[in-house]
Amino acid sequence: MISLAGTMSDPRCVVHEKNKEYDVTRGTTLVKRGFAHMLKHGVVMDVTNLEQAQTAEDSGAVAVMVLEKLPYDIRKAGGVARTASLEIIEEILDHVTIPVMAKCRIGHTSEANVLDSINVDMIDESEVLTPADEERHIWKWDFVTPFVNGARNLGEALRRMEEGAAMIRIKGEPGTGNVAEAINHLKLVNNQIRWVKSIYESGDQQELIKTARELKVYYELVHETGKLGRLPVVNFAAGGIATPADAALMMNLGCDGVFVGSGVFKSKDPAERARSIVLAVTFHDNPSIVAEAQKMIGENKSMEGLEQLDLRMQERGTA
Amino acid sequence: MISLAGTMSDPRCVVHEKNKEYDVTRGTTLVKRGFAHMLKHGVVMDVTNLEQAQTAEDSGAVAVMVLEKLPYDIRKAGGVARTASLEIIEEILDHVTIPVMAKCRIGHTSEANVLDSINVDMIDESEVLTPADEERHIWKWDFVTPFVNGARNLGEALRRMEEGAAMIRIKGEPGTGNVAEAINHLKLVNNQIRWVKSIYESGDQQELIKTARELKVYYELVHETGKLGRLPVVNFAAGGIATPADAALMMNLGCDGVFVGSGVFKSKDPAERARSIVLAVTFHDNPSIVAEAQKMIGENKSMEGLEQLDLRMQERGTA
Repeated sequence: MISLAGTMSDPRCVVHEKNKEYDVTRGTTLVKRGFAHMLKHGVVMDVTNLEQAQTAEDSGAVAVMVLEKLPYDIRKAGGVARTASLEIIEEILDHVTIPVMAKCRIGHTSEANVLDSINVDMIDESEVLTPADEERHIWKWDFVTPFVNGARNLGEALRRMEEGAAMIRIKGEPGTGNVAEAINHLKLVNNQIRWVKSIYESGDQQELIKTARELKVYYELVHETGKLGRLPVVNFAAGGIATPADAALMMNLGCDGVFVGSGVFKSKDPAERARSIVLAVTFHDNPSIVAEAQKMIGENKSMEGLEQLDLRMQERGTA
Repeated sequence: MISLAGTMSDPRCVVHEKNKEYDVTRGTTLVKRGFAHMLKHGVVMDVTNLEQAQTAEDSGAVAVMVLEKLPYDIRKAGGVARTASLEIIEEILDHVTIPVMAKCRIGHTSEANVLDSINVDMIDESEVLTPADEERHIWKWDFVTPFVNGARNLGEALRRMEEGAAMIRIKGEPGTGNVAEAINHLKLVNNQIRWVKSIYESGDQQELIKTARELKVYYELVHETGKLGRLPVVNFAAGGIATPADAALMMNLGCDGVFVGSGVFKSKDPAERARSIVLAVTFHDNPSIVAEAQKMIGENKSMEGLEQLDLRMQERGTA
């Protein structure tokens, strides 16, 4: 559905790429977005140490995301959440064969530089950590490593792409075990894309440029979104996904894959939980297999949900 | 100072041009902006008939702008102001050798199509006429004929360029004989450009994309403005310019040329007034020649100024 060739026609990428000397095997928009593309229909799992990373790999996760603490524990602990320990990231890089991602704070270019220099496979500029800059995100075109960013609506998603994100994850409320916010935002984005598509199809460019200004993003990106009828990059769901059925629902609503945060390693039997979610994502359109996956966790208590939230992580870094 | 080659690097232009079959001698961004470039250091005069057009040509105007009524008379008359009579425009096209421009209403694509089809040299999507659409301007990339648009600030100017304008005129308050508003806006634009230039020079791309969103325009255009330290297209002044000293002041403040509206043909001796303004623009940096020009109109009463304004034309179509 998504055309990789199409991404090369993004005029912005050409401008930036022709001004830089890139390693031809890494760092181009095609390679960055193509990497995200290879993760499609997969599950990316939050892990905090090598043991968890190996469990994730064994369960069939397409990548791991390394954090200091799981989102649930970040919420509980409070304080300032920062990028993970480099020793742990490097240990995981050395021992697992699947791609390794790590989070940096929003706007924290130096944390991103550090992650870039140790060659993580993708950087998540994430609202789960404490933002370093609420107003300005990292200019991601400057990095060889591809970036993923969160978004709650189409404007946010396209603005992050304009800054160079190669992948979007629709924000839920991380660490809560409640999938409702992720569903709200995904449905909102889907509605907004249908709206842009209808303007694109009407051929009314005056209306399309007006829409681009409302979304505070450049015209070509809105044009491309209308033409494709979807986000021009791979689009995962993240935040609050705790069960196989949660994951299957997000896939059925049109996501390209899911990030699972605290859901796996805050449950009783993480290995079984991990396998069940991978199974549900892979066969999301087959209710009997999703039911099978759901049964796998029958005896395996899900993470305790968090209802009352002092902190809405999803609202950080939405500029 | 302005690089014509640079305009071809505008990724937006490439995208639009490669999708269309253009007459190679007209309609490309290079040709459109180059045409505006050839008018630099010149005076464009508002005219309502052939006789006035010939007076303008004889006085050394670089182009004429054909209207049904002069802005002063539009103000006085009230009602809906529309594009000029095609018979008069064609008569002028047949009889003068300098370029002929005409105005269409803001957002009125069909008036623009009509002017395009009779081969006027430039179309002014102008707030002097009654806007057809306050929210949406014409998508000017679709036209072979180059467009000029008015602007009161940098955001407006860049948004009009984003829509395809090949030339900008800084808006004053037309038909009033009062140059104050044009000066206000030109100084504002100059200040904004210095601000963008300082961000560009600091190399802080996070701040530059934030600025682009504040101006509601795409990043590359803000980047180019910061790099050039000026608008990326030719920038004239228009509205309220009545005397040679007015015209010289606008040039000294950094304009590339001036539009003179009611100032010439609402004065007692239009031919002398026209020559004096052309002289002042040409030698704007030589006070003794500007003084000479100013003396030429000593006995020639300037247009009566309008002080009380029910209508602020400059505020139309600023979206």
